Amino acid sequence: MAREALVDSRQEILRTAARLFQQRGYDATSMNDVAGALRLSKGGLYHHFQSKDEILFEIMNHAMDITQERVINPVRSIGSAEERLRTLIRLHIEVVLSPRDREITVMLHENHPLPPSLRRRINARKKEYVHFLEGLMREVQQARQAKGHVSPRAAAFALLGMTNWIYQWYKPEGDLQANNLVPQFTELIFGGILA
Amino acid sequence: MAREALVDSRQEILRTAARLFQQRGYDATSMNDVAGALRLSKGGLYHHFQSKDEILFEIMNHAMDITQERVINPVRSIGSAEERLRTLIRLHIEVVLSPRDREITVMLHENHPLPPSLRRRINARKKEYVHFLEGLMREVQQARQAKGHVSPRAAAFALLGMTNWIYQWYKPEGDLQANNLVPQFTELIFGGILA
Repeated sequence: MAREALVDSRQEILRTAARLFQQRGYDATSMNDVAGALRLSKGGLYHHFQSKDEILFEIMNHAMDITQERVINPVRSIGSAEERLRTLIRLHIEVVLSPRDREITVMLHENHPLPPSLRRRINARKKEYVHFLEGLMREVQQARQAKGHVSPRAAAFALLGMTNWIYQWYKPEGDLQANNLVPQFTELIFGGILA
Repeated sequence: MAREALVDSRQEILRTAARLFQQRGYDATSMNDVAGALRLSKGGLYHHFQSKDEILFEIMNHAMDITQERVINPVRSIGSAEERLRTLIRLHIEVVLSPRDREITVMLHENHPLPPSLRRRINARKKEYVHFLEGLMREVQQARQAKGHVSPRAAAFALLGMTNWIYQWYKPEGDLQANNLVPQFTELIFGGILA
């Protein structure tokens, strides 16, 4: 029980659960697995979280906090719309590639159906991000007076697809890394929405 | 046992398993669930497939067959590189959006680790498709003498991300459907790789 005292924060549980969910998948990870990895009793784990669904929700919510703090907030203070979009593409890719932010991969990958009330809260935050992106695409097109063959909404989903899908194919030893992916994906999006 | 005689093909088992894997996820679906949905005995199911891994492999392999037959083959016979790329984008999106091809969603989503020998076979087919896309991007850039800020490889992964990610956000009642997604994503890719 000496160890139990060390696990005093929900944060430590969430970090460990995110790692397990990322490695094995949510469905293949039991509450016993999470407790075992933390050397906690199952009762000790349930003292902090009522269910595995609640843990998944908190991980996804934390992933949206990361997106808010490390992508959206730093971008908001930038004056030029073009510079905002350039910075957003870089920060979004950096967050997807960050090995310490396993919450992001869990949020991108897990399709396990959360209870409706929790699902609605995550979906509302995701939608907010899509709308933010959409607004940014529109501003860049207007600033450059682009005719706009590509709607801001389609461009927002294209950007999310390009950047989120990285978690599926990225290899640390591959030739596509953040330092060359960022400028290329930026060129592609700008060339595409301004064509 | 009358029903058992009807399940005479591995194909019917694979179709049903693909539907269950897509709806519930691979890890949350047991061999019992698959047998039950087909009104087969578990022994009857194991007569056709040795393991759930083998079923997943066959579903993914079938998804690559679909990609070969309905995306790659029709494109190969087209003379102009630009027309080949335009057609490929349309056919790839149509396959991702096709509700009857649940094998595609299973292949895009499932990260369950297959045994190495099976995993290598699927990965080899995926790589072949990436190389095909990469070659096509290069040809289009050369035909248009584009300076090429975006490498064919980055463009190939961008296209795969944009189009594959559709399964994550697409809603049949949404305002982005194949008929407007196809021209917009096509414009975006062409604008991006030729910028």
